[in-house]
Formats: sequence, C-alpha cells, structure tokens
Amino acid sequence: MDRSMDGGRKDVGILAMDIYFPPTCVLQESLEAHDGASKGKYTIGLGQDCMAFCSEVEDVISMSMTVVTSLLKKYKVDPKMIGRLEVGSETVIDKSKSIKTWLMQIFEGCGNTDIEGVDSSNACYGGTAALLNCVNWVESNSWDGRYGLVVCTDSAVYAEGPARPTGGAAAIAMLIGPNAPISFERKYKASHMAHVYDFYKPDLASEYPVVDGKLSQTCYLMALDSCYQQFCKKYEKLVGNQFSISDADYFVFHSPYNKLVQKSFARLYYNDFMRNCSSVDNDAKEKLQPFSNLTGEESYQSRDLEKASQQVAKHLYDIKVQPSTLLPKQIGNMYTASLYAALASVLYNKHSSLDGQRIVMFSYGSGLTSTMFSLKLNNGQNLFSLSNIASVLNVTEKLESRHMTLPEKFVETLKLMEHRYGAKDFETNKDTSLLPPGTFYLTRVDSMYRRFYDKKADEEIAAAKAKYSNGHASNGYANGH
Amino acid sequence: MDRSMDGGRKDVGILAMDIYFPPTCVLQESLEAHDGASKGKYTIGLGQDCMAFCSEVEDVISMSMTVVTSLLKKYKVDPKMIGRLEVGSETVIDKSKSIKTWLMQIFEGCGNTDIEGVDSSNACYGGTAALLNCVNWVESNSWDGRYGLVVCTDSAVYAEGPARPTGGAAAIAMLIGPNAPISFERKYKASHMAHVYDFYKPDLASEYPVVDGKLSQTCYLMALDSCYQQFCKKYEKLVGNQFSISDADYFVFHSPYNKLVQKSFARLYYNDFMRNCSSVDNDAKEKLQPFSNLTGEESYQSRDLEKASQQVAKHLYDIKVQPSTLLPKQIGNMYTASLYAALASVLYNKHSSLDGQRIVMFSYGSGLTSTMFSLKLNNGQNLFSLSNIASVLNVTEKLESRHMTLPEKFVETLKLMEHRYGAKDFETNKDTSLLPPGTFYLTRVDSMYRRFYDKKADEEIAAAKAKYSNGHASNGYANGH
Repeated sequence: MDRSMDGGRKDVGILAMDIYFPPTCVLQESLEAHDGASKGKYTIGLGQDCMAFCSEVEDVISMSMTVVTSLLKKYKVDPKMIGRLEVGSETVIDKSKSIKTWLMQIFEGCGNTDIEGVDSSNACYGGTAALLNCVNWVESNSWDGRYGLVVCTDSAVYAEGPARPTGGAAAIAMLIGPNAPISFERKYKASHMAHVYDFYKPDLASEYPVVDGKLSQTCYLMALDSCYQQFCKKYEKLVGNQFSISDADYFVFHSPYNKLVQKSFARLYYNDFMRNCSSVDNDAKEKLQPFSNLTGEESYQSRDLEKASQQVAKHLYDIKVQPSTLLPKQIGNMYTASLYAALASVLYNKHSSLDGQRIVMFSYGSGLTSTMFSLKLNNGQNLFSLSNIASVLNVTEKLESRHMTLPEKFVETLKLMEHRYGAKDFETNKDTSLLPPGTFYLTRVDSMYRRFYDKKADEEIAAAKAKYSNGHASNGYANGH
Repeated sequence: MDRSMDGGRKDVGILAMDIYFPPTCVLQESLEAHDGASKGKYTIGLGQDCMAFCSEVEDVISMSMTVVTSLLKKYKVDPKMIGRLEVGSETVIDKSKSIKTWLMQIFEGCGNTDIEGVDSSNACYGGTAALLNCVNWVESNSWDGRYGLVVCTDSAVYAEGPARPTGGAAAIAMLIGPNAPISFERKYKASHMAHVYDFYKPDLASEYPVVDGKLSQTCYLMALDSCYQQFCKKYEKLVGNQFSISDADYFVFHSPYNKLVQKSFARLYYNDFMRNCSSVDNDAKEKLQPFSNLTGEESYQSRDLEKASQQVAKHLYDIKVQPSTLLPKQIGNMYTASLYAALASVLYNKHSSLDGQRIVMFSYGSGLTSTMFSLKLNNGQNLFSLSNIASVLNVTEKLESRHMTLPEKFVETLKLMEHRYGAKDFETNKDTSLLPPGTFYLTRVDSMYRRFYDKKADEEIAAAKAKYSNGHASNGYANGH
C-alpha cells in the first residue's frame, strides 16, 4: 500500500446518514380488516404496524434524488467532494441504465462527473454490496481523498395475496470516509452465498416477485446460521476468545417483517447454546436441551424450538434488538434499505449511549446472498457525530407527519402502478400535496420512455414565496433531462 | 492500513483470463446481403467481420458457468481459493436474482459459500465496475488472501433494423490478485458519468434496447474526451510530464463496432493536437489546423475532422490499436465483455513483447458511465504468465472451429428467443452438437420460471467414453437446482 496515505484512513465507515420514505402509508390493522384476514395476522403474525408505499408521483429514482440532495445539504457536503457513488436496488425501472446515472444530475451541475460506481444488484443485498465496495475503495490505492456515497432505494410491492402486507418503500443515503463514528471491523465478516429460488423476479413485465415464503424464511435462517458460525470462527481465530451474543451490544437484521427478526435473534441464541457458550444461562440450557439432538433440517421446521428459543432470548431481544425495529415496523420491507433503516433506528434511539459499542449486522438478499459484519461506534465530531446523525434522521417527526391512507386507496394505487410499470407516454397527476418540501417527484414519461422529474420547493424557498407572492403554490424548478 | 499485509499486495491486477463465445455465428457479409443493405455497409461501414449469437441452448448464465469452470481448471485454481466473485452484465434474465448466485453452484460443491460480491449493472460498463471493485477488495483491509474472480457475460441482440448487425455474445472470466502480470496503475484513472438516454432498456418485456445511434456515438466520444483530459491531468500532476498517446503502447476501447474504435483513437490524436503535444508531427498539425477553432459540439459533428484525424492517426492506429480488434471484429459487441475481449486480443497477439509496456483502457456504458484506466504489463510466471494466458485464450483455434450460420437461421433463432424471453414452462431442443466439450447449456425452464442447465461432457470424459462405450454420446451430469 501507499504508506503516505495510511494516516488518513483509520476507522473507515459511515460518516453521515439520511432516510426518506413516502408520506403515504397504510395501517396494517386496517389492511388486515380490508383483506378479510384474521385479526392480528399482520400486526402480531408479521409483527408489523404500518406500511409505506409510493404514490404515482414517486419511485426509486425520485426517492434517491430526494435523499441524496437532503444528505448533502444537511451535512454541508460540497457535491465536488464526492468521488464515488454507488446504488443498491432491486427495483428495476430500466434494465440497462443505472439509477446512479439519474443521480449524476445532482453532480453535473457543479462540473463533477468524475464519480466512480454503478448499481449493485441482488435482491435486498445490493445496498450491502454497494456499502462494502465503497469502504474497500476508501481503503484501496485508488482512493483520492474524496467521500464515497452509498444509496439504498427500493419500492417493495407484492401481488394480491399473503405477501402483500410485507411491502414497503424508502431510500437511504450514507456518506463514507475515514475517521467515521460508525466504522467497520473489517476482519469480522462472513458471507453465505448460494443458488436458490426462494424469491426472484423472472416475470419481466411485472413489478411483483415470485415468492416461496416458507422456503425464503428457511433460506434466511440457514444463511444466518452459516454466516454466524463463520463469523464466530474468524473472530475467535483473531481474538482468541469465544464469540457469543454477549459480545455485541446490538444485532441488526434485514427485516422483511418483524416476526422474522424475532426468530433470527432466537436462532442466534440457539446457536450459542449449541456452541456451549458460557453466556447461555442454566435456565435457558434446560429449556433448549430437548432440541440439542435435532438435525439442522429438523431445527428449521420445529415450532417448539422456535417458541422455546424466542422465550429464553426475549430479555436480550428487548435490549439488543428492539431499538432497531422502529423504522422497519413502521415502514415495512424496504428491500436494500431495510437493514440500514434498522441501523438508523438504533442510532436514533440510542445515539447518546453508543460510544465504544459494537453492532453486528446481518444482510440477506434472496437468491441468495448474505453477509454478517461488525460495526464499532464512537461519538464522532461536529456534523459527523452520532447526535447530529440522530438529529438529521429526525425519525419521530418524519413518522408522525405521514398521511394514513385507507386500504382502498392503497389497492387502487397499486392497480394503477401495475398498468404504468414499464409503460410510456403518460403524465402523473403531479399531486405533491403530501410531499415534504424539497422532495423530487415524477411528472411524466414520454413516448421514448424517458422519465421527467420535478422538485417541490425547498422550505426556505417555500417560506419566501409565501411571504412575497400572495402565497401561490410553486412546484420548484425543472429537473428533467 | 494493516501494514503487516502490505507485502503481499504489490501489483494487484489480472492474474489469469479465459474467454468463451458461442460456436454459432453469422458472417456480416452474408447478413448485409440478406438484409438488402448496400455492399460494405456492415463490413466497412461498421468495420465488422462476423457476429456470434446464442442459440436456444445458451444464455448469459450458461456462458458464464462455462468460462468460470474452464478458467479454474486451466489455471489449476482450487475453488476454495476464491474469496470474491463479481459479475458484470446488462443481459437481464431475472430482475432480482443475480447471475453470481447461479455461479455459486460451482463453489457450493466444495463447501465454499463465503464468497463476497454480486452483479454490477450499467450497460456495457458493469464488467469494469466489477473489476475495479475486485481490485479495491484485494487492496482493502478486508482482503483475506484469497483470489477475486470477475465475470463479464452478455448477449447483445437488437430488433430488426440498422442496429441488428451490432450484436454479439461472449463471457470472460478474470482472476484477480497481487503480483499480477497485468497490474493496475491505480492513480491514472478518470471517469465521466452523466444522465443521458442514448441507449437503454425501458421495455421490460423485450430483450431489445431502445437506441439513439447518433446520440450514443456522440456521448461515447464526449465521454472519451472528458476521461482523457482528466486522465492526462492526473498523470501530469503525479509524473510531472505531459501525457500523450506516445506514452502508452496500446489503447483498448470498448467496441460496439470497429468503426467507432477507429474514430475514438483518431479523437485522442485530435485531443493531443489541441493540447499542443510535442508528439504530434508537423504534417499532422498542418492537416488538423483547419479544425482548431471548432467548438466541442462542432467537432463531434464534423465529418471532415473525422476523416482528417483518422488519416493522420492511421499509422499509430495500426500499431497501438489494431492488435486489440481481433475478437471484437470477429464476435461483435459483447457488451460488458467487449473491452476485455479487446484486451485478450492484445495479450494473444502480442504476449511475447508486452513486458514493461503500458495499455490504456477506455470503458463505456450507455446511460452513461465511463472510465479510462491504465495497465502495466510484465511477463509473469508459470501459470500466471502472459504466454500461458495467451495459450489458454487459444483464440485462433476457438475462432476457426466456429460454425458459420446462414442469416435465415440467425433471424429464426432471434424470433424464437423473442418468444422465450421472460417465458416459463418450455424445453430447449438440447442440441449440443456444435458446443465444445465442457460447455454448459440450458435444458428447460419450468412452470415456476426456474432454469435448468446441463453440461456437455469434458474432453477427457468424452474421449474415455468414446473408447470404452461404443461411442454413445453423453451429455454429462445434471447441474440443475
């Protein structure tokens, strides 16, 4: 390595973060009733409270433009200081042109077109791939001192049926560089990659996936086991001590729905029991003993084991996992953004007590790709401090200012989007009434399938206009091609 | 950086390489006649000789399985030694499940599922993104001493019309690690990224792109200019001398068709002239003088400039570019594999004289993303030597053993593929007569859209079978899910 540069590259990781999610959402409780599902099926069965969805003026491109613009502004980052921009997404709008190229509009204005990176794709894992790529870039010989920027953006929608309540939508942006308050413990990392058809999108004309829910859940847990076992092995080889869940302060899981997160943490606890970790107490040992001779396959199918392990892990779940579940429960599955929305939830809920703590992350993308990795936290400074990140995330206010939509309206929107997916030559209703100031939105798709976006006026502009121009509403400046 | 590991990471780059392209191809001359195009339109106008295409038993997945298996075998690389696998492709078969996951079948067998990386996507650039990611990984703190593997795989097909003869198909695999015969000069690298609709794939139900040929060519040349100017600036800042085309031994361009490669090199020459490079001789100066006052826009449109610059650059083109054009002219546009097939052509044609030489690469993906970067060559050793790479590539024999198909058959195949794109529940004809031993092929797609592949028996197995079993043909072992 070029030693002269080493000094600038300690603690490479996440310097800053912002999240955007649509203001339109539907309560799982009302969706349950609307769908004629048994009471509690979505709220307790899936563990979800609410689900965000894109109205006809929003998509993964508009959401990512909104969140990148917001991050640059709120953390006062000059767009010229970005040297790499990578996007993780599984929401395909164009099969060739990357979402990254749309985001280049933000940087072309100031003459910065020398920005590496494209889109990473494999189901919900693409954001993690983009993030790891960006961190590697900062640590590589080709780093030029500028920041990396990672965007996770997805709109998760499902055909009518049991998977529909597991949708969601959001975009997250993360700024990457050295001396980060959220840095990577590079050597504690393990992946599990395999060829499986648990969830995939082979019907190219439809936005909806093909899902084998039961297989997908088993694949998730198998991948979790495999990653955790490798992770522990690597940790133990390097550190010399056995790793157990007591060695991390938080566990953050990719969250298709909250119930699977509960099962996942219980599964780690069961792993610790099977690995004879001293951290597993006697009461738990006794309760898990009946399951110690199960084969792997049996253990994934046993409802009794599921119940017993969730019960013995419950007190630790409340401490080590619960703080990460805020946004995923309120927004739903955000695909690539899901894991990082869960991380954002921990940062938001616990920022004042995270100094020196460790967060273990588990990323899963069907098909399948998965990685478990470790983050080390420190308070950071000024704009790039945990407390400032929490204040920019502004989760409570963002959640509270949302508009609860009736299930009928949600279903109607999805119907409309089915017709518009991959379509050309249409205009949207341009209804921006629910969008926060500064939000990008889709105005039309022309006869050549080209997409045009506009931006709702920023807060200051909106305020100024209201003051000086008799309060006429303005939709801001053109931002099309 | 972790200094203890630096020693193992000099000269990170390409250790080994292999290419696979379909045995089915069509002569551009006969396609010209079939299409009723004027004589020379495809052969001289586009500069292409022949075009490879996938028959109904081949696709980007089968080609990539073939080339990865072949690389591991020919360079005697244990599949356990692969720590990262990345795929670049713009040929979408599934919108969520990555091509990388299909390739995991090759590694799952030996228990190696801890392999990072997914698919990188933006038109023809994805392979370069994957390659740069892999090199960064080897130079990062998370490198664990294993090899990276990069796969570029694409099938380029166009709707009937002027773009159809610019198709092609191939898969390339590259092994990445330190002490490579083909290493990256990390600091000489410049990108140009922008939001453009020159070539894209918004019609999700069709494999064919939407192309604005004229715009795409201008975008390519503008991106080339921008990258070259930044590249020169970075070189000059670091080295202190002016950079000109005399400072590289070869220039390798992404090649949608050969004529654009000719124009591109002439454009670099014109750049050197405008930058007052001492390497531009007096005769050339005189001939280019009339164009010295053109605006950028005018210079892209001027046919006279195009002619004049190609003429003055011709003698250098023959030396510095011609050796890279062999495979692209014979196979056609291979999208992500195109640039690396051109590199393979240089390695194959010039391996014995490359020691110490520099190759400048230009990667372009519509939409748009582009990077210019520099490679330094050394002879290397044993299996990872330039001469062994050339012998594994075995270009002449691979090209000569192809089957020239009639244009009617080519058109018929594309018609069939139009129906099968995104379709389910069909069997292929399983005709492997033209496939070389060891080639993977598609057997069927089931009612759940799941794809199943088989492998034609390897040479040794085929030979053994022929010897001991009365010559019954065998299609090898099952490789489905």
